[in-house]
Amino acid sequence: MRKIILASGSPRRRELLTQIGLEYTVIPSKKEEILRFTQPEDIVKDLSLQKAQDIAENAEVGTMVIGSDTVVSLDGEILGKPHTSENAVAMLKRLEGRSHQVYTGVSVVIKGMAADGTDAIISFAEKTDVHVYPMTEEEIQAYVATGDPLDKAGAYGIQGIFAKHVQGISGCYYNVMGLPIGRLYQELKGWLEV
Amino acid sequence: MRKIILASGSPRRRELLTQIGLEYTVIPSKKEEILRFTQPEDIVKDLSLQKAQDIAENAEVGTMVIGSDTVVSLDGEILGKPHTSENAVAMLKRLEGRSHQVYTGVSVVIKGMAADGTDAIISFAEKTDVHVYPMTEEEIQAYVATGDPLDKAGAYGIQGIFAKHVQGISGCYYNVMGLPIGRLYQELKGWLEV
Repeated sequence: MRKIILASGSPRRRELLTQIGLEYTVIPSKKEEILRFTQPEDIVKDLSLQKAQDIAENAEVGTMVIGSDTVVSLDGEILGKPHTSENAVAMLKRLEGRSHQVYTGVSVVIKGMAADGTDAIISFAEKTDVHVYPMTEEEIQAYVATGDPLDKAGAYGIQGIFAKHVQGISGCYYNVMGLPIGRLYQELKGWLEV
Repeated sequence: MRKIILASGSPRRRELLTQIGLEYTVIPSKKEEILRFTQPEDIVKDLSLQKAQDIAENAEVGTMVIGSDTVVSLDGEILGKPHTSENAVAMLKRLEGRSHQVYTGVSVVIKGMAADGTDAIISFAEKTDVHVYPMTEEEIQAYVATGDPLDKAGAYGIQGIFAKHVQGISGCYYNVMGLPIGRLYQELKGWLEV
């Protein structure tokens, strides 16, 4: 099995890699993210690649470095992390009672493994539609009071208590959590066994 | 808050009720399930109601008893728990590379709370489409060897290592795990505060 490095400090992404039985080391990329695209698919692929390439610089030949980036998109507008309770309330008021899209980009840099000795690169984006039930003002306030939204793109985490406000999704559930482990495994499996 | 009894011994259903912040007691129904319908929606609603009514018989007035039943359906045929490794392999060979449906029925008996003093009843079924990636013989054998499929309808659990074989879903993810907590909360919320 190849050595795997996860270039993200997210505990949710760690859990998901563990869930599909992979062993890995965590080295979060601290590189400043540079936004160069406008479309959500392009943004998340590019940012995930920036993270993976940052860590791959110092990796041994043959190592796989996994970078990942997730954004929430509403009518083409990107919603980031709310950081404050007021922003979280405002975001949730926009999301309730309708559908939005979650995009996660994943890039895997396999150090020095292209035919010409440069890095092999796998990069893709997955989209999941998420439909949120209508929420009352009290429900939004109660959820924001849990503190859960502050560090999450779109101001919610699907895997916690917010699940009670989610009617359904179309696509990969784990993609909404931050790592589309089905697609990731399918893309990687030819590379896992050396 | 009303007293809630979960009439199921499933640890996954317990986790999900806890996830949406409900407090409850577990009293699994041990009544023999009697199959009276042919359509998956009807079967799961009826079996969930049988379980809830069984436990509600001895419940105090005002208590909510939640029963639940999940089946996997492939081209209209119900797939149960495989029980043996051979059955699990055969089921997974039917599921790989295509979509199937998971139905969970939920019935909530609210003891003595109908207008005429009989039990109020909420009963519904949720359907989720699940698309499984193509699987090789080796992948099927490796998954069955984990022992995970044996006690699960359709021979897989979406919340474990099998996630790497799932391309996506359409509907409620938690419904596939055995309890559609979004819909359940929406149906119950008018009843939760007395």
